[in-house]
Amino acid sequence: MSQNPALKIAFAPGVRVLIPFLYAGWSDRVLTPSEVHTLRERVAQLSFLTKPDKQQLLLWSNPAIPPTRDLFKFWEISCQEVAAQLPPDQQTLLAVGLALAASETPRQHWMSAQDRASLQALETDLGQLNVATFRNLFNPPPAAIFEEEARRASFRVTEMQTLLDGRMANVKAKTLTILQDPEFQLRHIPIKEDHREQVLKWCQLLARQGMGSLSFPSAYGGQDDLSAYAAVFETLGYHDLSLCIKFGVQFGLWGGSVFNLGTAKHHEKYLPATGTLDLPGCFAMTETGHGSNVRALETTATYDPDTGEFIVHSPREEAGKEYIGNALHSRVASVFAQLIVGEENHGVHALVVPLRDTFGELLPGIRVQDNGYKLGLNGVDNGRIWFNHVRVPRENLLDRFGQVAANGTYSSPIENPSRRFFTMLGTLVGGRVCVPRAGLSATKKALDIAIRYGAKRRQFSPTATSPETPILDYPSHQRRLLPLVAKAYAVQFGLDHLADRYFARTDDTMREIETLAAGMKAYATWFTTAAIQECREACGGKGYLTENQFAALKADTEIFTTFEGDNTVLMQLVAKGLLTDYQQAFHEDGNMAIMRMLGERISTVVTEQNPFTIRNTEASHLRSAEFQLSAFQFRERRLLFSLAQRLRGHIKNGESAYQAGLICQTHMLALAEAFVERVTLEAMHTAIQQQRDKSTFPILEQLRALYALHTIEQHAAWYLEQDYLANVKSKAIRRQIDQLCSQLRPEALALVEAFGIPDALLAAPIAL
Amino acid sequence: MSQNPALKIAFAPGVRVLIPFLYAGWSDRVLTPSEVHTLRERVAQLSFLTKPDKQQLLLWSNPAIPPTRDLFKFWEISCQEVAAQLPPDQQTLLAVGLALAASETPRQHWMSAQDRASLQALETDLGQLNVATFRNLFNPPPAAIFEEEARRASFRVTEMQTLLDGRMANVKAKTLTILQDPEFQLRHIPIKEDHREQVLKWCQLLARQGMGSLSFPSAYGGQDDLSAYAAVFETLGYHDLSLCIKFGVQFGLWGGSVFNLGTAKHHEKYLPATGTLDLPGCFAMTETGHGSNVRALETTATYDPDTGEFIVHSPREEAGKEYIGNALHSRVASVFAQLIVGEENHGVHALVVPLRDTFGELLPGIRVQDNGYKLGLNGVDNGRIWFNHVRVPRENLLDRFGQVAANGTYSSPIENPSRRFFTMLGTLVGGRVCVPRAGLSATKKALDIAIRYGAKRRQFSPTATSPETPILDYPSHQRRLLPLVAKAYAVQFGLDHLADRYFARTDDTMREIETLAAGMKAYATWFTTAAIQECREACGGKGYLTENQFAALKADTEIFTTFEGDNTVLMQLVAKGLLTDYQQAFHEDGNMAIMRMLGERISTVVTEQNPFTIRNTEASHLRSAEFQLSAFQFRERRLLFSLAQRLRGHIKNGESAYQAGLICQTHMLALAEAFVERVTLEAMHTAIQQQRDKSTFPILEQLRALYALHTIEQHAAWYLEQDYLANVKSKAIRRQIDQLCSQLRPEALALVEAFGIPDALLAAPIAL
Repeated sequence: MSQNPALKIAFAPGVRVLIPFLYAGWSDRVLTPSEVHTLRERVAQLSFLTKPDKQQLLLWSNPAIPPTRDLFKFWEISCQEVAAQLPPDQQTLLAVGLALAASETPRQHWMSAQDRASLQALETDLGQLNVATFRNLFNPPPAAIFEEEARRASFRVTEMQTLLDGRMANVKAKTLTILQDPEFQLRHIPIKEDHREQVLKWCQLLARQGMGSLSFPSAYGGQDDLSAYAAVFETLGYHDLSLCIKFGVQFGLWGGSVFNLGTAKHHEKYLPATGTLDLPGCFAMTETGHGSNVRALETTATYDPDTGEFIVHSPREEAGKEYIGNALHSRVASVFAQLIVGEENHGVHALVVPLRDTFGELLPGIRVQDNGYKLGLNGVDNGRIWFNHVRVPRENLLDRFGQVAANGTYSSPIENPSRRFFTMLGTLVGGRVCVPRAGLSATKKALDIAIRYGAKRRQFSPTATSPETPILDYPSHQRRLLPLVAKAYAVQFGLDHLADRYFARTDDTMREIETLAAGMKAYATWFTTAAIQECREACGGKGYLTENQFAALKADTEIFTTFEGDNTVLMQLVAKGLLTDYQQAFHEDGNMAIMRMLGERISTVVTEQNPFTIRNTEASHLRSAEFQLSAFQFRERRLLFSLAQRLRGHIKNGESAYQAGLICQTHMLALAEAFVERVTLEAMHTAIQQQRDKSTFPILEQLRALYALHTIEQHAAWYLEQDYLANVKSKAIRRQIDQLCSQLRPEALALVEAFGIPDALLAAPIAL
Repeated sequence: MSQNPALKIAFAPGVRVLIPFLYAGWSDRVLTPSEVHTLRERVAQLSFLTKPDKQQLLLWSNPAIPPTRDLFKFWEISCQEVAAQLPPDQQTLLAVGLALAASETPRQHWMSAQDRASLQALETDLGQLNVATFRNLFNPPPAAIFEEEARRASFRVTEMQTLLDGRMANVKAKTLTILQDPEFQLRHIPIKEDHREQVLKWCQLLARQGMGSLSFPSAYGGQDDLSAYAAVFETLGYHDLSLCIKFGVQFGLWGGSVFNLGTAKHHEKYLPATGTLDLPGCFAMTETGHGSNVRALETTATYDPDTGEFIVHSPREEAGKEYIGNALHSRVASVFAQLIVGEENHGVHALVVPLRDTFGELLPGIRVQDNGYKLGLNGVDNGRIWFNHVRVPRENLLDRFGQVAANGTYSSPIENPSRRFFTMLGTLVGGRVCVPRAGLSATKKALDIAIRYGAKRRQFSPTATSPETPILDYPSHQRRLLPLVAKAYAVQFGLDHLADRYFARTDDTMREIETLAAGMKAYATWFTTAAIQECREACGGKGYLTENQFAALKADTEIFTTFEGDNTVLMQLVAKGLLTDYQQAFHEDGNMAIMRMLGERISTVVTEQNPFTIRNTEASHLRSAEFQLSAFQFRERRLLFSLAQRLRGHIKNGESAYQAGLICQTHMLALAEAFVERVTLEAMHTAIQQQRDKSTFPILEQLRALYALHTIEQHAAWYLEQDYLANVKSKAIRRQIDQLCSQLRPEALALVEAFGIPDALLAAPIAL
């Protein structure tokens, strides 16, 4: 039975028989002279057609008047639905036409043998004229739907991809090529030991390709190219994220700690074998008792001047190293411990501690315990490590920022212990630059799958007799996914901005970059968690099957909000950084700063908060970068100012600075978010302005507008409270978002295709 | 080394030695006369104390002046930290005192042997006076922290639990007792086949306890008690959710379809063996091609009058049954198919189709395929099922709402096919009543774990020298978790209200209950997903370990937003239901309805939207049930009115009703949410008013206020746009939420203890 009785109502049975033929003729959007000729000739001979039937068919075979998009779609869906009920080898134009003509009674005998022969001849003729399109006429593979939609977009996908890939396009392409090798085929491995073996093997394969040592100096087998390393790491985000994290632990954290905290002797000794993965290592900082509060770590490294050794010790169970990636495979660890020399504690320092011998046996005094199954990332061997008076030679201290002489004299190039501590911790910034990029890759993969599925999956029809609607055509579905696509673009530009600054960092810019990295890491990884969740729900039950990838994407990225710094803690760091700058400005400029601040506020009131602007609901205004940037900047500035005022008030009232900070904690988190959002929008805006390709420009502007307005909508209550928006404007913003979602609907496929994720890595049957 | 150098600064070494003794003396908050006497006598003899030392100790041993809470806490934390570094058998008061006195150099010899002996005697005396508190003086097990916090709460936990457990307290308690049996010990089982075996076994154990047939008529081994069945199902939400779902599929869906759609002959034939799980069955409704759109299912059941059989057939691959729980273990299925008799399609009906013989071998014409690994619920055997012209006897039609006579005459007690379809679908409502309750159990478990961890876990300290702060004392952490606790209470009252109505349903109330069930299901399960996510993040890396339960809780409940009706689709049903009622009211009452509506609007403007009320920031007003209920009711009423207006406008402009609905889809979702929130708040308010226990009343009022204000805050932009709140009031609401969070902080442990989840089911090491 046909799903599509509308046909029956709209067209006479005779016309219905011919629909597959017309559909075939027009399927390449052109009716060539030969097609016109053969169609009309055969139609004229058919005895079952009435006069009105023939008139209709004459009209449809006029090459100057192609069928409307809706009519063609209608033909297409009707034919496909009927064809789907026939065995593939019986899906002829004639069989489909007959089924369309008389769907309620499958076998019809009203057509003469002669008519039947004429139609078969017509089918042969048309087939010869147009071989390629005939192949998938009735059962277009979903890929064809995706391609077709991407082709119809208003911009060139390749240009967009070039923009997103940036300078490292070659490295990314090379990594993708490797990851599409059959050796890297994605699969679900339920037993953690098997999964870890597989991931270790993959990691070794990457190391053999020279990808582990990219960031190390060329003297030690590397290429001195941190941004290439970051590009590989980011691209691994499309693959099994356990591999990505394992790779990051070995080369970024363990290798990075040797490189950044050690000196030449350590580089020489460890880096070559680290880059080839002949020396697996781990980064042992976090303890059970202390995660976020690194300064209070309890592991001790006490210098024994008699033997020239450090004694590394975990004073209690809770002081054991916790959650250490690579703990079960590592032969060495960079261990963070309180450095005690004589009677004095010089604070947290790192030193290399061997864990296992070359046979993989634990060394004396080392205890390791598997962390067991985790929510995700079960291909990474996380474990706990305790040290029982383990002695290591003095040379094992990674001594770039603090040295201990043989006689037990401590010295450091950085006098201030607090500054020294934060300088050493600065080595974590690289991780905060990279982790959100891998998270964004996972987000893009989820969006690509969900958008493809939304374009393909149909459910419910406008009337009982019409074809079902692709779910991405529902406004609620667009509202669900398209702001996330826009935000994925925005976050990418924000992360690119951070990476550019990080790779070009100097001592002077480091503190600012640290603030930015902390903020972007938290903002981007929270987005990852929320976006993948939404994508899973948007794919319904199919999204819940492991084969469709969301299970792994969700579970594996879930911890990104916690590791490399808990997001809530990081956002407080951001707020503190902003307050420090603010107070410094006041301190340095004194009254001038106050005058400038007041001037800014007055100017804002005049230009942005005047009765006209706060009620301006014109689309051109709402969609303008000018309005959006001003709104974001206003929010950050206002929150910073009011937070500073409030803190000052509390302190004046006798609260300690700590207590005052505690009272204002949620305010601080809001400020940090406003800061990151402002930076993200500005980075996106700048990137768009610099984009040379004309075809992508308008769509990028729409994406920016959608990101910005959707963000403003989320903070609408605040803007309304501040009298920055009047209610008419707030409502108008909501309408603009709806319109942008619907405008971007036809571009959706192209927007996710531009992420450039190969099908082998997408790997989800519902998206292929 | 002590973590706590503040002590060194605050008190002389001599005093520090005595701190553990004072802490021990005061540990039960009382210094008895004997304790005063022995303390003062010994102190007087000690030679190492200076005069000021002795004065200080005299003061501290004054029974009339107990130490302040802060001072006592300070003693406690200092002692515990030092003690933690001593082996358990050496944690004497004296050893701890010595360590406190001279933390930088562990071994001190400045104390005379005589003083030492005096102190040892003092320790013995105090220990004899107070044996119980001595046991866990320095290392209170976390349970003691939890108990202590719960004890200090302003209300009686048992009374609160009684309120939450409701009428079914006995059934819940019985279920919990069974689930604490060692046979039911929770564990992570990575291989799906093993997990399914375990879950099947558990299910059989429950069936043996008579829990599977509770809802069936007593004639067939049951107890006619649907609410008892629902209570068991809800309680299983604390255990492995695969068990909960498997249980629901077997007894609720398969058994329920036989009971609700079948007639006596079916009950007799299937229910007894279903209740004992001797006849495993499944509920085969969803197809790959059609999930939400049940009406368009493609499986056919064609009547063959020659043999008196139905031929059940899947016409194409996509028409196969999809995601069917219990598919791999079932011997029978209730299959939903288009019922075709003669030339006529009577729409979707259910019939019993045998799948396997008694040996578990598939019957001819049946194809089953494992759905493979899923994001969660891997203990449930979901599969796909296809039928190839499978013949079943006419009696297998579940014929309560549609019969086929032997001669092929179709008849039904419900004339209207659409009403018949929805009546049959009404059997799904039971699932929608139950599923969110199990989801809420999972949410409560997550909140219990997260709140306990927040009370126990310390990180960062106000100054370098003071003890670290429990993370639940941070306002940002309170803001994260406490509104969720309040919402868990609110949702429970909402679900109780739904269940009460459902169990007392009549034909007249059924449509309304269906709307309510759809809405509550969506609202509660979305809450479950969001809340468990937040709890995981609030527990950091520890929350990511499988042993701490969030992995399973998150993964397993994730699909609750999709199954038993996709939430987005359900919310649209809700909106449509509300619109129908609204239009009906207009239709019936005509102009009177319009007058009433206008009257309501005018009255709202006068009473709620007047310049004074919209600026009223008084705490008593904001916290009042009156304001909160009015605000919720206003939102629902306003959204309904404006949606109706808007739809009418679009239809006037020539859009089809379908198209108009599409345009207003997001508006419809907002209305549905407003409706559910209003019902939830009203249900909570009513339950509180009816609560007899005085001790819980104030806290319930605070929870209601937090839920209500937090919800209003989430919609603040809308309220501001509607001029229902002025900006001062919106800001004041935010402040009230902060205050409520901080007020509820000391009650937090007691609030989650009242959920009554036994430790064996909590099962998370971080919470024990």
